[in-house]
Amino acid sequence: MNVLAETDAAYIAGFLDGDGSINVRLKPNKAYRFDFQIAPNIVFYQSKKGLSVLNRLMEIIGGGKIRLRNDGIAEYTIGDTDTMINLINQIMPYLILKKDQASLLMAVLKRKENLTTKKEFLKVVKLIDSYKQLNYSKRRKNDFNLVSAQLEQSKKEV
Amino acid sequence: MNVLAETDAAYIAGFLDGDGSINVRLKPNKAYRFDFQIAPNIVFYQSKKGLSVLNRLMEIIGGGKIRLRNDGIAEYTIGDTDTMINLINQIMPYLILKKDQASLLMAVLKRKENLTTKKEFLKVVKLIDSYKQLNYSKRRKNDFNLVSAQLEQSKKEV
Repeated sequence: MNVLAETDAAYIAGFLDGDGSINVRLKPNKAYRFDFQIAPNIVFYQSKKGLSVLNRLMEIIGGGKIRLRNDGIAEYTIGDTDTMINLINQIMPYLILKKDQASLLMAVLKRKENLTTKKEFLKVVKLIDSYKQLNYSKRRKNDFNLVSAQLEQSKKEV
Repeated sequence: MNVLAETDAAYIAGFLDGDGSINVRLKPNKAYRFDFQIAPNIVFYQSKKGLSVLNRLMEIIGGGKIRLRNDGIAEYTIGDTDTMINLINQIMPYLILKKDQASLLMAVLKRKENLTTKKEFLKVVKLIDSYKQLNYSKRRKNDFNLVSAQLEQSKKEV
């Protein structure tokens, strides 16, 4: 991840506020210690015709991947922890709309690497639940209640 | 219109590139000398939940109006010529995606105030037609062909 010029950081903050998303999902995945993967990302969207701006953003930021969806939308996704921390640190002063999502992402990113107990893990799940309010997502189904119930039933030693 | 801090100008450029529009429409209006009103504007969109960021933008920019549409989208529209020229001048260095639309808007704004002949007017209409390409608009129906045909038929002395 590059060090950004102030105006590049401000531009990216504006672009993200206008048409991007900061999110953390919980994906069921038995390969993970607590049966769920904590999957945070930062995504910038554009219709295919705006692909050039996503390429430019990737160049400025220095990380992430662009993919073209079948519905004609291009997505530039950053999912790497270090890049996300670095990016949020640099654009935070300029964010207006998504400041809370960014703070929450930082809190999750900082905790997720050192989770040793189920209690700690469930604390982070609770934190992730608060995105529901921020992103007005109705589709989020892997929340604290579901995850904690499933961990109770799990025979894995955690 | 305010003088913007560099990072505010860059933020606005990013927001506009991400989720805004720069456009010029030709509206049939017999009150105007050439039967059509040249109606340029710059619009920032957000869902209702993002209204706060539009209010903040309006505060930073110092001009324009916010309205809530029936479909739940909030629009912050700037239609005043001086404000648009001033804003474009300040954000131009930071625009990536909408640089061409912004240049075209400037060309139209600078010419539209001093149109005395039909020939001059139709030149501007031709300029406006080039937005079709830039904005990929298929709905635009008041184009050069229609306007010039209508002016031919018009009994107004222009």
